[in-house]
Formats: sequence, C-alpha cells, structure tokens
Amino acid sequence: MSQITVLRLTIEYDGTRYSGWQEQSNARTVMGQLRKAAEELFETKVDIQGAGRTDAGVHALAQVAHLRLKTARPVRPEQIRRGLNDRLPSDVCVIAVEAAPPEFHARQDAISRTYLYQISTRRTAFLKKYVWWVKEDLDVAAMARAAAMLVGRHDFAAFRAPDPSRPDTSTLVVVQAAAIEVDGDLILFRISASHFLWRMVRRIVGVLVKVGLGQLQPEDIARALKGKAAAKMDIAAWTAPASGLFLEAVEYPPDKHAKRTARH
Amino acid sequence: MSQITVLRLTIEYDGTRYSGWQEQSNARTVMGQLRKAAEELFETKVDIQGAGRTDAGVHALAQVAHLRLKTARPVRPEQIRRGLNDRLPSDVCVIAVEAAPPEFHARQDAISRTYLYQISTRRTAFLKKYVWWVKEDLDVAAMARAAAMLVGRHDFAAFRAPDPSRPDTSTLVVVQAAAIEVDGDLILFRISASHFLWRMVRRIVGVLVKVGLGQLQPEDIARALKGKAAAKMDIAAWTAPASGLFLEAVEYPPDKHAKRTARH
Repeated sequence: MSQITVLRLTIEYDGTRYSGWQEQSNARTVMGQLRKAAEELFETKVDIQGAGRTDAGVHALAQVAHLRLKTARPVRPEQIRRGLNDRLPSDVCVIAVEAAPPEFHARQDAISRTYLYQISTRRTAFLKKYVWWVKEDLDVAAMARAAAMLVGRHDFAAFRAPDPSRPDTSTLVVVQAAAIEVDGDLILFRISASHFLWRMVRRIVGVLVKVGLGQLQPEDIARALKGKAAAKMDIAAWTAPASGLFLEAVEYPPDKHAKRTARH
Repeated sequence: MSQITVLRLTIEYDGTRYSGWQEQSNARTVMGQLRKAAEELFETKVDIQGAGRTDAGVHALAQVAHLRLKTARPVRPEQIRRGLNDRLPSDVCVIAVEAAPPEFHARQDAISRTYLYQISTRRTAFLKKYVWWVKEDLDVAAMARAAAMLVGRHDFAAFRAPDPSRPDTSTLVVVQAAAIEVDGDLILFRISASHFLWRMVRRIVGVLVKVGLGQLQPEDIARALKGKAAAKMDIAAWTAPASGLFLEAVEYPPDKHAKRTARH
C-alpha cells in the first residue's frame, strides 16, 4: 500500500557550475539534479523544496530540503542517502537523510538560516572559487563594528534586490547574529537571521568591504538600516561576488526534528 | 653591473592539472610554469630548483624553491612576488619571496620536509581533488599505532618505487615525526623526514589503510621496515592516490634563513 513519505535531506554543494539551487527550465540547477536523482531512485515523481534559494555560483555546506513522495517501499535513510549520492554529480553530496514528520516543510518551518561569506586577503591557489579576493588592505576592526550594527530587527530594504517571484516578502528581518572573524588569510563574515532577502548577504558584504576600505563609516550601515542611505551608497553596484558565499546551516524548532537519521 | 641574485620562493599549488613539479619536455609542470613566469619577468634565463619533487596530481601548501639569476636591477621581493603571480596560472601561487644567501640551494640545504595526506571518510562535494575517499570503516587507533612505528631511522626500501633518475639515493631515512589525526570527516596523516623516497608517502598511506581495514597488523609495518615484508604485502599495488597528498612544509637550518621577506 502506497503512503506519503517525507524525508529531510541535508545537502552540500559546490555551486560553481550551477545556475543556483532553484529549479528552472533550461538551466542546470542543484535542485534539478536532486530531483533527477530522486525520481530515478524512487521511480516516481517527487516534491522537493529547499530552505534557502541560493543564487548561481553560491555554495552550501548544509542546505536542507524536504523530499515528499508516495511509495510502498519501506524507507531506509542510509540506503536512500547512498542511492541519491550514486546518482548525483560529484559536486553535489547528500550528507544526511532523515525520516521527517508528514507535515515537515523545509522552507516554511525553518526558524533561522546562517550564511558564511569568505573574503581572502591574498591570491590563493586552492580557494579561488570559494572566496572574494580583496587586494587592498581592509580595516577588520571597522568591519566588525559595522557587522555588529546589523544585529536586531531592522528594515533591510536598502540591502535587497527586488524579487519578482516573492513581491510580498517583508523587508523587516530579525538578525540573530552577525560577526566578522579573522582566520589566517581569510576574513569570515557570518550572519544568522529569520529570513533573507534576495542578494541581501552579498550586498551587506559589499558595504562591509567599503567600510574596511575606509570609504564608509560603520555608522553609514546604521543609517541605511533606517532608510537613510546616503546618495554615495550605491549598494547594488557593490554586491559581493557569489563565489565567497555559503549557506552554512538551517535551524528548525525542536518538534520539527526528524526521527531517524542516516548521517555520514 | 649584473650580479648573481638568489631568491627563496614559497609556493602553493593545486597539482590536479600538472604532471608534477619537476620540469619535463612535453609536459605541463609547476616548475615549468614558474620558469616561464620568471624568465618573462626578469627577461633573462633563470635557474630553479625545488625542495621536493611532487608527482603528478600532488599538491603543495609550501613548496620551497630557489631562483638564481643574473640581474642588474635591484631586487624588491614584494614586487617580484606580484610580478610572478601576475604571470602564473590561478592554481599556482607564490606566497613569499625572500632574498637568500648566494649559496642557498632549496633541495640540498633542506633538513626536513613534511607531507600531509588527507583521507576522507565520506563523499564530499568540495574536497574530491584533495582527498582519498575510503568508503569502508577504518580503525583509526590501529592506524595511529602503525604510524608511530615509522618514527626513527629505518630502511624504507620496501616503501619506495625504484627511481631511475636517482639510483644512488639511500633508503635509510630518518623519520622525525609521523602521526594520524582525526579532523571531522577527515583522517590526516603527517610525516616529517630528512628526505623521502619516490612514492614513499603514498605507499605508507596505502599500508596504513590496510591496517585501518584490519587486513594488516601495526606490527606488519615494523616487519616491512626490517626488510621482512610478508608475501601478502603487495605495497606497490596499494599506493594511495596522488590527490590526497600535500607537501606541507620544508625546514632549513637557521643560518640558511633568508634576509628580507615579502610574505602575504
């Protein structure tokens, strides 16, 4: 007897070769590859939704997606993990498969997402696809002060690109954490929030780099969050490149946690 | 007036697309790229030697090479570092340039080299080119005991591939350190020694993995170091793949240290 099965997948991908996460006709997307693998494995149509719609060239360390399907077969998470990975290209990897409650929705149930942005202060032989190389010296302390101003409930209208597919999304965002960290030759920016607007992280990083270059003051960020962005702030033009951006984690309330896990 | 200038270079490279470090006719090598960049920059012939001859597909985090040339121009390490990097492909990067004493020889003066080998215990979207993915469970504690047996002065004849270009190299090697470390889903093996024989690290790693799989005992390593490798030990066939191997560091005696540094 067929029944509805819902799986929660945790997925890692190198976004370099993809037109982003979200499925599109005539474009190679991560979700498209995942659907292909899942429909081949289960020999049936599946419904997939991801927690975050990463753009072209953006990576994920732990994207979360739900996979909903009708199947008569018993669900063995570890077998499904292997079966999907056997059918996926080498730059997409299912890290974990968990049986989820029937109502689980990866995007709607998520209470927080964390993005990581990597700036490299030097040319690098290994990380070119995973950083933004900024050649000029950056004042990291000023960037850290500016990042701290993002924490709290603010209107991020100045930092978003208009999103025709979701015109009604509120520009009020609760930022739970935002911080700059130095790790050798890398400057890491991490931000956790209730939801993210289109291009929001990359535009914030563009502004933080302007602060690091001394061309803006940390206080200019506070002003932009109050809708008082100065004319000199061409935030859209400063959008940081996709290569440095990673969806790092997605959080759910405890009762949405999955029951059985196959994690590697 | 022209004079002999000797520079010490520290170089990072992703070896995936190269036929190794050492220059060869009709093959793309890291040293070949470096020579091309240097001769274009200085507009003269240069002599280059690296501390370690990494094989095809092997990477380096800090290869050291000397660059000897006749030039009338003053040597500005930071300008040279940028000039070389501007002429090198993106997977080769000069990290540091230092003015060195005239007699400095990157290979002959090195007193120790450290290699790192990365084993991944899972499929990975980002690290495929930089690890050996071993799908079976590995007994890391047994591997660590086996690695510890490598420390000291031993005859590594059983672990070398015959090297026609250097038939007289002694198979007696002083291993200063050898250890296994677990870092998340990675098993790291680090080994520091006076010198290394051809394929030695990859053959040691092949044997360590056999120990991890329970197909060999740590004591089998000790026996192989005494020239008593059991018939069951087909060490050459077990050679670990090049992708997981990195030349991590090269050490010199203090008096060979360079005088001026441009490091990034």
